[in-house]
Amino acid sequence: MADRLKAAVLGATGLVGQRFVYLLSRHPWFQLYAVTASERRVGKRYGETVEWYIDEPFPEEAAELEIRPTRADALRDVDLVFVALPKEVAGEIELELARMGKIVVSNANVFRMEPDVPLLNPEANWEHIRLVEEQRRRRGWSGAIMKVPNCTTAVLTLSLKPLLDRYGLKEVYMTSMQAISGAGFSGVPGYAITDNILPFIKGEEEKVVRESRKILGKLEGSEVKHADFRVVATTTRVPVLDGHLESVVAKLSKTPGSLEEVLETWDTWKSMPQELRLPTAPEKPVVVRREPNRPQPRLDRKTGRGMSVVVGRATLPFEGEPLLRYMVLGHNTLRGAAGTGVLIAELYYRLIEQVF
Amino acid sequence: MADRLKAAVLGATGLVGQRFVYLLSRHPWFQLYAVTASERRVGKRYGETVEWYIDEPFPEEAAELEIRPTRADALRDVDLVFVALPKEVAGEIELELARMGKIVVSNANVFRMEPDVPLLNPEANWEHIRLVEEQRRRRGWSGAIMKVPNCTTAVLTLSLKPLLDRYGLKEVYMTSMQAISGAGFSGVPGYAITDNILPFIKGEEEKVVRESRKILGKLEGSEVKHADFRVVATTTRVPVLDGHLESVVAKLSKTPGSLEEVLETWDTWKSMPQELRLPTAPEKPVVVRREPNRPQPRLDRKTGRGMSVVVGRATLPFEGEPLLRYMVLGHNTLRGAAGTGVLIAELYYRLIEQVF
Amino acid sequence: MADRLKAAVLGATGLVGQRFVYLLSRHPWFQLYAVTASERRVGKRYGETVEWYIDEPFPEEAAELEIRPTRADALRDVDLVFVALPKEVAGEIELELARMGKIVVSNANVFRMEPDVPLLNPEANWEHIRLVEEQRRRRGWSGAIMKVPNCTTAVLTLSLKPLLDRYGLKEVYMTSMQAISGAGFSGVPGYAITDNILPFIKGEEEKVVRESRKILGKLEGSEVKHADFRVVATTTRVPVLDGHLESVVAKLSKTPGSLEEVLETWDTWKSMPQELRLPTAPEKPVVVRREPNRPQPRLDRKTGRGMSVVVGRATLPFEGEPLLRYMVLGHNTLRGAAGTGVLIAELYYRLIEQVF
Amino acid sequence: MADRLKAAVLGATGLVGQRFVYLLSRHPWFQLYAVTASERRVGKRYGETVEWYIDEPFPEEAAELEIRPTRADALRDVDLVFVALPKEVAGEIELELARMGKIVVSNANVFRMEPDVPLLNPEANWEHIRLVEEQRRRRGWSGAIMKVPNCTTAVLTLSLKPLLDRYGLKEVYMTSMQAISGAGFSGVPGYAITDNILPFIKGEEEKVVRESRKILGKLEGSEVKHADFRVVATTTRVPVLDGHLESVVAKLSKTPGSLEEVLETWDTWKSMPQELRLPTAPEKPVVVRREPNRPQPRLDRKTGRGMSVVVGRATLPFEGEPLLRYMVLGHNTLRGAAGTGVLIAELYYRLIEQVF
Repeated sequence: MADRLKAAVLGATGLVGQRFVYLLSRHPWFQLYAVTASERRVGKRYGETVEWYIDEPFPEEAAELEIRPTRADALRDVDLVFVALPKEVAGEIELELARMGKIVVSNANVFRMEPDVPLLNPEANWEHIRLVEEQRRRRGWSGAIMKVPNCTTAVLTLSLKPLLDRYGLKEVYMTSMQAISGAGFSGVPGYAITDNILPFIKGEEEKVVRESRKILGKLEGSEVKHADFRVVATTTRVPVLDGHLESVVAKLSKTPGSLEEVLETWDTWKSMPQELRLPTAPEKPVVVRREPNRPQPRLDRKTGRGMSVVVGRATLPFEGEPLLRYMVLGHNTLRGAAGTGVLIAELYYRLIEQVF
Repeated sequence: MADRLKAAVLGATGLVGQRFVYLLSRHPWFQLYAVTASERRVGKRYGETVEWYIDEPFPEEAAELEIRPTRADALRDVDLVFVALPKEVAGEIELELARMGKIVVSNANVFRMEPDVPLLNPEANWEHIRLVEEQRRRRGWSGAIMKVPNCTTAVLTLSLKPLLDRYGLKEVYMTSMQAISGAGFSGVPGYAITDNILPFIKGEEEKVVRESRKILGKLEGSEVKHADFRVVATTTRVPVLDGHLESVVAKLSKTPGSLEEVLETWDTWKSMPQELRLPTAPEKPVVVRREPNRPQPRLDRKTGRGMSVVVGRATLPFEGEPLLRYMVLGHNTLRGAAGTGVLIAELYYRLIEQVF
Repeated sequence: MADRLKAAVLGATGLVGQRFVYLLSRHPWFQLYAVTASERRVGKRYGETVEWYIDEPFPEEAAELEIRPTRADALRDVDLVFVALPKEVAGEIELELARMGKIVVSNANVFRMEPDVPLLNPEANWEHIRLVEEQRRRRGWSGAIMKVPNCTTAVLTLSLKPLLDRYGLKEVYMTSMQAISGAGFSGVPGYAITDNILPFIKGEEEKVVRESRKILGKLEGSEVKHADFRVVATTTRVPVLDGHLESVVAKLSKTPGSLEEVLETWDTWKSMPQELRLPTAPEKPVVVRREPNRPQPRLDRKTGRGMSVVVGRATLPFEGEPLLRYMVLGHNTLRGAAGTGVLIAELYYRLIEQVF
Repeated sequence: MADRLKAAVLGATGLVGQRFVYLLSRHPWFQLYAVTASERRVGKRYGETVEWYIDEPFPEEAAELEIRPTRADALRDVDLVFVALPKEVAGEIELELARMGKIVVSNANVFRMEPDVPLLNPEANWEHIRLVEEQRRRRGWSGAIMKVPNCTTAVLTLSLKPLLDRYGLKEVYMTSMQAISGAGFSGVPGYAITDNILPFIKGEEEKVVRESRKILGKLEGSEVKHADFRVVATTTRVPVLDGHLESVVAKLSKTPGSLEEVLETWDTWKSMPQELRLPTAPEKPVVVRREPNRPQPRLDRKTGRGMSVVVGRATLPFEGEPLLRYMVLGHNTLRGAAGTGVLIAELYYRLIEQVF
């Protein structure tokens, strides 16, 4: 087994950045080696400048890291880079890093729909990682850019994939109730969200529609043929700290034999990350709860260390028809961001580089 | 014009009861004349025993009313009765009161689906009030029992009625985000709902399905022919004090000419309560908001003194197809309970008794 | 009686600005005539650019006002100016406006401790308004700058003033639980305050200490002699939208005859604004609640249209000793900001200009 | 070392009961052996009947335990009993169990002030455990009843003890901001606490006053001489799930040399549970935070696995005077209930029985 690889986190003081820092601080393959943040923090120690507000203990091994500037030339000594930057500043540096030969796993909403950039929710579409080869060919670089999907889409597609495989998928009607942390630490004012719901999240619904079809598309040769089911997405913000809850109606192509069959399909589903025993892969990608009042964000968001999605309230409302109603919950900054980012990197090094 | 009629509120200390008390304390036709509560409060003055927790000033005229027992024989001197009791205790007393000749307007979930009991959301189905005549014929009483719909259904059907009339309605997929007050003052523990969503409300989804088809059904002779659109309802509880928000996808029978046409359809819709200028009728039953981030429960729930529903986020996601996506918000203890109760009584006295 | 005076609100789109706009939109003496906001909004109509999020209906008369730049030279045509700007930008423009002869009533935390600037909580220290004469003498201008106190201090001093007058005051220990709106619309992130308390508000405790002694000081000739009681203030932020709740222990100079005597002292206390029947003055500056579980922020913050403070939980813990424990609640953006601002202007025009 | 002792939890399905179950499920000395609950659950398996809502994973080893009735005769086969019952039902069964020779550690508010019942906050008053001998003598039983203090008092006294030892203590003014869980799962309605503070908790202030003086009293021979400092306590309920925050002003007998000296006094303080390395004892009973904005309930309540209290915001407001201001936070169902309960049992078996 190789030595631990040197990993950087760009935007390490934000909510997603902190999740990356925590996950890497205890990772068997990757070493938390460099952190970057905005200009005013450069040169300070991470432990001194970060306001640690996630629900994990602060990793003491991160305390002494010196904040680097968020520039490619400050990252020559690292192997891989996790990007938790706003999209406005992420694009340029990701390109530069890839040109420098770095492995870039990015949460930023840029390049996600580029045909040669894999948009990876590993259990749902691990084979898309082969796009990296096409990407290198086209772009002439030895690095790689791999993308984490939008958080809501990551949760949704994990629940849809086993349905698609077994029953086919025609239409999806989804209403989300998304956590505050999805907008970053300061993204939702307390005065706006207390005793309230915000019925609109800018750009979110479009992301769910287009990203879910790419993620659940088929890799054919060197391109992904997008799936052709239709999606109507309504996305809202609710007074919950972490965990996106989604209410789904799915029109399948084939009527399931029974509700129990659907539940078993989810419950027994495993994919490549489970087969490869990747360190961050949950035992079960989809956990089925049969009690009527689950999933609940506060009680269930940490299921599978935040890497499983939890499905509940499933019914087949009309007998003999391929219409399935259910709810799905996932941790938006773990399964929907940093956790999936780390899982993508694990998949890359195991499948492509084969170093672990 | 007649003298004010003597009105009683049964279950006057609960959340819905308090709304009734407030509305009646300033009503031009009805006089707040009697209040009942549970046994331990009987004989106390209302102002001394109630814990007033709604967002309206306490009506001083209610302070001196003596709490009566919740029994029919204690209500001989009243004309009409508003029922805000739990369903377990409501049924028997409602029957007795109707037999005594009283006009009973009830929020309790009992008798709602009886064929000769009108389930009234006045702007949507005011003509169903004629069922009272059938009811009297069948039951041989001179009183009447009229029912307020389930809160979620009241909000939903008000937004659906103009769509049904103009475009026809085939399927409705609805996900609700319901306020805490929907479960009564003590119905949702603070520990359960803080930083959380409860994905299940017992019995609620069934009510939405069956009541919406009765409300939007056609009165043919002496019975209501239920509407035949299909409903899939997913109902949840969110950390909001008042105001149910509902995310809707409606498959219409006919494709609207444009989104603007749909918005105009809602915006210009008026019904009998508006024509009759009933005191509690809002100027507009459906208020359309065109900003992307409305309706919001805290900001919009009091629209039309809580008697309008507010529609927003409407789109026609697939060009040329009769599929409409929107959100609708309504105040669950006003439009969804006490306000609609008072509006029903107004409709009755104007249309049936013709005393005002 | 004079015509209505032309009033401007500086910073009219923020939380306190919106309160000013609402109060002026229905004011008998002042006309809402001009509004200013940040550069990017200049030239737009108020109704189009403001995100109205306070719990009052949007005043349609404000909709058509054109946003002006926040500069003195854009305000030549107004009589009086209400300032709801951050302190960083307020100072310079307030000076310019006063030099131009304008009456400036400001909520901004600048100049509050200047000896010739009255810091006014009208019922507590209306006579300090005479400092305006000294201010004009010293500064050679015909305008005036008058200051609204810090919100927490405004609430506290209103409850202390009747105690000070009757019993004298030696020490005050105060712990506040302050609403989110005290930090402005975006001042407290939802992620920070959900399921949490922030135990620190920058600069707040110092303001309480120094401002309470100035407000409760004595005007002697042309200067205010600060009161000499001691204050220990601990200020915190809690998940409440509006309404600051304060837990107080006061060491008095003289032992009250009884708790009842203290309650009566508060309850019967009136001051100059009540005598003058100023339009914004509440009937009672201090409302006493005798139930054990009051005051509650959500239920009591609008008492006296948000201009009364509500006192409860009073006890004399040690018999025969001049130690009083109580809680006091006040609406932080009404009594603690815009409401008191308007009341100050009323006091000025009645007592100094004597135009109404 | 002895075999693990057989432990029962009475009232095992409530919030404190669940904490006991979790702590015992992984305890080196005690085996989670029996659980009781209310009549309707008797005979069911714990895993099937409990609604698990604390923020720890459900301990699978508890799933199969059969719920026993809450009666002494159903507990003959256990060694020690942890009581998480309401006080109304706790007293009788505790007496019976002690007579049967059982070791009873109880969270219930009954017998706490009996002179021969130790009220134990182990780091603060471990030596009071000797009262068990007096209790056995007086009552003639071989069992024992030991009491966990009121949660607010447990947090407060842990912060006071090092101050008392070094500086002496004259007066304490304390305002608490207490978590919802302090009232049990259903104790605080969501409608009551959202966007609100409840300024009153029945009986709480009296408990703080009397229990803190017993806990910090001196064991002299076979009785505890209560401490004689004075306490004014104001206790409130805030919208926080777990963690009581307390704002304290303490008048000491002796002026500290410096604030730093006070901080060091807390920071370096250890007591018998630390010396004995009891399994549940935190490394530091009092953790000092020097950042201005700590302690925060959500971020700090799990410090020391919920068994440390966290002190912050300390100042000496008046130079040269023995007046100390600070805030202290503790986990109310761990340090304030179940955690302290388990720690008491550990202390007992180590010091009195000396079996571990």
